[in-house]
Amino acid sequence: MKTAATELLDIEFPILAFSHCRDVVAAVTKAGGMGVLGAVAHSTKQLEIDLDWIENEVGDRPYGVDLIVPAKYAGDGDGGYTMDDIRKLIPDTHREFVDDILARYDVPELSDPNDAGGGMYGSSGDAPFSAKNAMPQLDIALAHKTAFVANALGPPPQFLIDRCKQEGKLIGALAGRPQHAERHQAAGVDLIIAQGSEAGGHTGEIGSMVLIPEIVDAVDIPVLGAGGIGRGRQMAAAMALGAEGVWCGSVWLTTDEAETHPAVKEKFLAATSADTIRSRSLTGKHARMLKSKWTEEWERPDTPDPLGMPLQPILTSAAQQRINRAANTPGSGANELANYFVGQIVGTMNQPKSAGQVVMEMVEEFIEATEALAAQLTN
Amino acid sequence: MKTAATELLDIEFPILAFSHCRDVVAAVTKAGGMGVLGAVAHSTKQLEIDLDWIENEVGDRPYGVDLIVPAKYAGDGDGGYTMDDIRKLIPDTHREFVDDILARYDVPELSDPNDAGGGMYGSSGDAPFSAKNAMPQLDIALAHKTAFVANALGPPPQFLIDRCKQEGKLIGALAGRPQHAERHQAAGVDLIIAQGSEAGGHTGEIGSMVLIPEIVDAVDIPVLGAGGIGRGRQMAAAMALGAEGVWCGSVWLTTDEAETHPAVKEKFLAATSADTIRSRSLTGKHARMLKSKWTEEWERPDTPDPLGMPLQPILTSAAQQRINRAANTPGSGANELANYFVGQIVGTMNQPKSAGQVVMEMVEEFIEATEALAAQLTN
Repeated sequence: MKTAATELLDIEFPILAFSHCRDVVAAVTKAGGMGVLGAVAHSTKQLEIDLDWIENEVGDRPYGVDLIVPAKYAGDGDGGYTMDDIRKLIPDTHREFVDDILARYDVPELSDPNDAGGGMYGSSGDAPFSAKNAMPQLDIALAHKTAFVANALGPPPQFLIDRCKQEGKLIGALAGRPQHAERHQAAGVDLIIAQGSEAGGHTGEIGSMVLIPEIVDAVDIPVLGAGGIGRGRQMAAAMALGAEGVWCGSVWLTTDEAETHPAVKEKFLAATSADTIRSRSLTGKHARMLKSKWTEEWERPDTPDPLGMPLQPILTSAAQQRINRAANTPGSGANELANYFVGQIVGTMNQPKSAGQVVMEMVEEFIEATEALAAQLTN
Repeated sequence: MKTAATELLDIEFPILAFSHCRDVVAAVTKAGGMGVLGAVAHSTKQLEIDLDWIENEVGDRPYGVDLIVPAKYAGDGDGGYTMDDIRKLIPDTHREFVDDILARYDVPELSDPNDAGGGMYGSSGDAPFSAKNAMPQLDIALAHKTAFVANALGPPPQFLIDRCKQEGKLIGALAGRPQHAERHQAAGVDLIIAQGSEAGGHTGEIGSMVLIPEIVDAVDIPVLGAGGIGRGRQMAAAMALGAEGVWCGSVWLTTDEAETHPAVKEKFLAATSADTIRSRSLTGKHARMLKSKWTEEWERPDTPDPLGMPLQPILTSAAQQRINRAANTPGSGANELANYFVGQIVGTMNQPKSAGQVVMEMVEEFIEATEALAAQLTN
């Protein structure tokens, strides 16, 4: 295939795969798409190891790295805030509510409390989602053969764009509104990911069917469609809407290569498209995730409103680790609470496959759907 | 064009137009699609007049009628409830809140209080959205040349399906989840309208990108895509997802033929795709509508939760009439409160056009988008 995105990124199929798992990244790149490693939870040491491993796997084929670098943020340098300062901003009501959930659902303590340092939001000791946390990650990505750097949350800061340009790397950014895309283009981004509300993780309210053509019309750089895309018909739809390719995240979570928590993977395979919710309960910003007792507790009208970012992830990170550690026991409270970010396509993720198979099936169904559509014109 | 939907409905282009305005219905049918008259707010007398007028306009070309017949409902016969019984179920807090909104926004009283009997939810004196209200409408539709009857809310009751079959009319039903579509098919419906969350009016949470292919796979009767569809690229996307055509509602609201309130039409033309909200504030069920001071008041955490259906429409109907009567004065409170049902494509409804022009542009862009997509295969 040949689209503006395959040309820009030098790939065979315009399918980008966002994943925290290096195996998914390598598998998709090897299948002719481009894997993009979500690095937010990586220590610098682990990121070095994983990028070396990926390069060894994929040879000269291109791969990307996804960072979360907010433009402005309470955890950043100037204010001189430390993690301890930030922790003090968490109200007791919220701490007590989290403790109460863990108690009511009989979630066991971690046997080694030092375990609670890492988890889904990074292990550097700095505040999660902070520029301070992301800078060393950026250095490592730029020192590797990383072809593409994406910024997943908000506008990429100018220093990030400038450094990528200096090092000859392409840079992309996610947009949930046309104005975001215009701002990204003006700042010098090479590629826009137009992400509709159907997506897993941080996501807005505008559906892909409306958002993708709006963004395609708002900018003149290539646009990838994202949100609700996990199969060939959806890829064809995104490209009929004007996108030059697709960006998929959720669909890899049930692949053989993914390190998704086994209890959560099982829930994903059983879930329908109605089983997700946009909730602030994990990160403090609206993120789509699987419904579970965790989201039910936070969405009840009589329970506290989630805090903002970074307070909510700091508040919930250790609790999430305790839940995940115990979630494999069927029927346990921890199992009922366990969830993770996932989009509405979870309803069609019904059997585990290899990541390479997902790419191949997507391309095959894309061809079928496109041929069937084109046949309408001649009928 | 030839699809399963054009064959079934005997039309040239698989574009169905839902509208409360007979002029839109006739214009779309004449342009080669099919207009479907939303009859919920019509008196039986007005419905007779409008269907006669439409038939005179369109000749032998087919048109449809859309009714709202809930399967089970507090306003229906068996319980022997009257409108007065139902009115008594409305709590004083809610009446007072509505009165308070009208007072704070300086919305003038109606000069003739008898005016308040009709409005957006029907004028028969029966409860809105009741089978009792819809039955005489069905009789009139069946006595006319109506080719297609749609039921917009919930599963069509068996008597509705049976009568349509007897009279040789086709019947369709909206579905916001795959299970709804399966149920409709099992009940004998001829056509499913798969309506994603982006849509205006009563709508679910699953986006079109995910919902349309799920429903296409769940049934073996033709499916129309709806929700977020107002231009050719979106039509091509819906059909790439497996739909045999599209069902559009919002896009007609800013056409020359539409009787949309002028103040609301002006707001629609200026609105972006981020300016809608799924709110229970008008009907008691989640319906997507333009954000305004009205939705802001009802969505505040310190204001009452909307009631269910039919209490909420009974509660708000007269207030809505007062608001609409005064909304043309720029800068007035009534103007700030005024809103109406509309989908996320309101962001691309930026200039008034004729309904026929909308159909022609949609077909032209559909062809362009399809040809561009097909070209990806040969590149």
